Amino acid sequence: MSLVIIGTVAFDAIETPFGKTDKIVGGAATYASLAASYFYKNTKIVAVVGDDFHQEDIEEFSKHGISTEGLQIKAGEKSFFWSGKYHNDLNSRDTLATELNVLADFDPVIPESYQDCEYLLLGNLTPQVQQTVISRIHKRPKLVVLDTMNFWMDVAMDDLLKTLKMVDVLTINDAEARQLSGEYSLVKASKKILAMGPKYLIIKKGEHGALLFHENKVFSAPALPLEEVFDPTGAGDTFAGGFMGYIAKTGDISFENLRRAIIFGSAMASFCVEKFGTERLKNLPKEELDGRIQEFINLAQFDIELV
Amino acid sequence: MSLVIIGTVAFDAIETPFGKTDKIVGGAATYASLAASYFYKNTKIVAVVGDDFHQEDIEEFSKHGISTEGLQIKAGEKSFFWSGKYHNDLNSRDTLATELNVLADFDPVIPESYQDCEYLLLGNLTPQVQQTVISRIHKRPKLVVLDTMNFWMDVAMDDLLKTLKMVDVLTINDAEARQLSGEYSLVKASKKILAMGPKYLIIKKGEHGALLFHENKVFSAPALPLEEVFDPTGAGDTFAGGFMGYIAKTGDISFENLRRAIIFGSAMASFCVEKFGTERLKNLPKEELDGRIQEFINLAQFDIELV
Repeated sequence: MSLVIIGTVAFDAIETPFGKTDKIVGGAATYASLAASYFYKNTKIVAVVGDDFHQEDIEEFSKHGISTEGLQIKAGEKSFFWSGKYHNDLNSRDTLATELNVLADFDPVIPESYQDCEYLLLGNLTPQVQQTVISRIHKRPKLVVLDTMNFWMDVAMDDLLKTLKMVDVLTINDAEARQLSGEYSLVKASKKILAMGPKYLIIKKGEHGALLFHENKVFSAPALPLEEVFDPTGAGDTFAGGFMGYIAKTGDISFENLRRAIIFGSAMASFCVEKFGTERLKNLPKEELDGRIQEFINLAQFDIELV
Repeated sequence: MSLVIIGTVAFDAIETPFGKTDKIVGGAATYASLAASYFYKNTKIVAVVGDDFHQEDIEEFSKHGISTEGLQIKAGEKSFFWSGKYHNDLNSRDTLATELNVLADFDPVIPESYQDCEYLLLGNLTPQVQQTVISRIHKRPKLVVLDTMNFWMDVAMDDLLKTLKMVDVLTINDAEARQLSGEYSLVKASKKILAMGPKYLIIKKGEHGALLFHENKVFSAPALPLEEVFDPTGAGDTFAGGFMGYIAKTGDISFENLRRAIIFGSAMASFCVEKFGTERLKNLPKEELDGRIQEFINLAQFDIELV
């Protein structure tokens, strides 16, 4: 049994009010698989890079026990590259460059060894490619989670709606939930979106935490108030990876366990934003992770007895 | 022993995307005392109105066991009037009219029977008047809570800073916390504001809940995701009133109990916004309130055991 994660493995160049980076390794599958690896040891990625990708960066995956058998390396081609600059409040950003390169004609390959996939995380990519991955895994996984973004709502809504019918969980942010549903109220938005296919909807609200909707129930997870958000890049992917890694580890897809998984995902995301890129996810001691989870417990708990 | 609440008792005319009202009874002391009355029976208001205020509106306070001995009625003068129109997202509004009337030279009178004040809530008013009330209560109350707004930061910052040194708890919204501290990060803002005097800081974030800061600790309270916010007027005052009423009822000013009080305040605010003005606060059965508190428990709880 395994957790399969599809998404980008790419180069990013990031500028925040705190500094800027040269090309560093990023991409949804990178953040998500690193985050998942702290919970679940049988994590596998499906992605594509060019031959500009360094062997030592691929070894970073192996060090975390992540299988890269599904990572295609295209000779003579370049990896996907994104460059962006965050505004002072770090809540918005300008894209400075997007070079699709190898991503332009990405045809995901699912190695035979990935066919034991029990948990599937579809990181942000064209809905068409996300569908292809679902169709190429022979046995329907126990849980399929889809991450997407406003861009695909603008340019590929029909494909996205088709993909939504094939998944169990959708994760998007609050602005995207409003765009997808046409409703301002997130409660109303959640009803419309759950009617589109997924059984669970996670709405990410950045510094305000996340909401999990299921049937007529809702869970509100806090975000850890941080002194400083250094670089928000990859926070959403890290959240999804931590969430999926915890579910894969526990093998429990109940609503109660999804609540817990959101706290673990949020904790991983809170580490991610503390430094540039994946730096904070490369070597995270168990004690630090446990301490962060304890902070979430202290942050959110209250004991009220109704009399 | 009693809970004394100072603030406006006034007329509002409100327009939201859902409709508009004629002049209805509003004001910080109105919302806060009604909310508090569901928890604590010895609540007293200090305020001023004109003789345009109706006897039946004053009786509404009495019906809830709220003392109006400190409510001055100025013959030949008019009550404070505010009129506003909310935008479609209900997160912002335009003020259409502000008529100070009796508020222009409000000199708060503290009746002798109010000198047993143990809990004091200073609703939004000029910091100078808030100070006057503190000085006219002979025995320092067990807990003094200050509510204020950006307007006083713009026009009376020195007075506000002086008042801040005299109180235990400050409640403001996130934009106001940023303005008062000059810090974007709410964690950094909280440190600066706690250094200005109050021992506790509550940052209200509307649909995103509230944060309670104390020393180096923080509590994050969720807001109940609502299908529809009908009229946000008075939500912050209602929150403060429910918060104070619960503290007065329990007589416990520990950090743990303040956490609980925030949940009760949030529950009262979630009722307030369901209808225009104070309508929802006039007759709230205990079962409904208990049900709402249970919704908050279901909304926020998760059980994680670290191993």
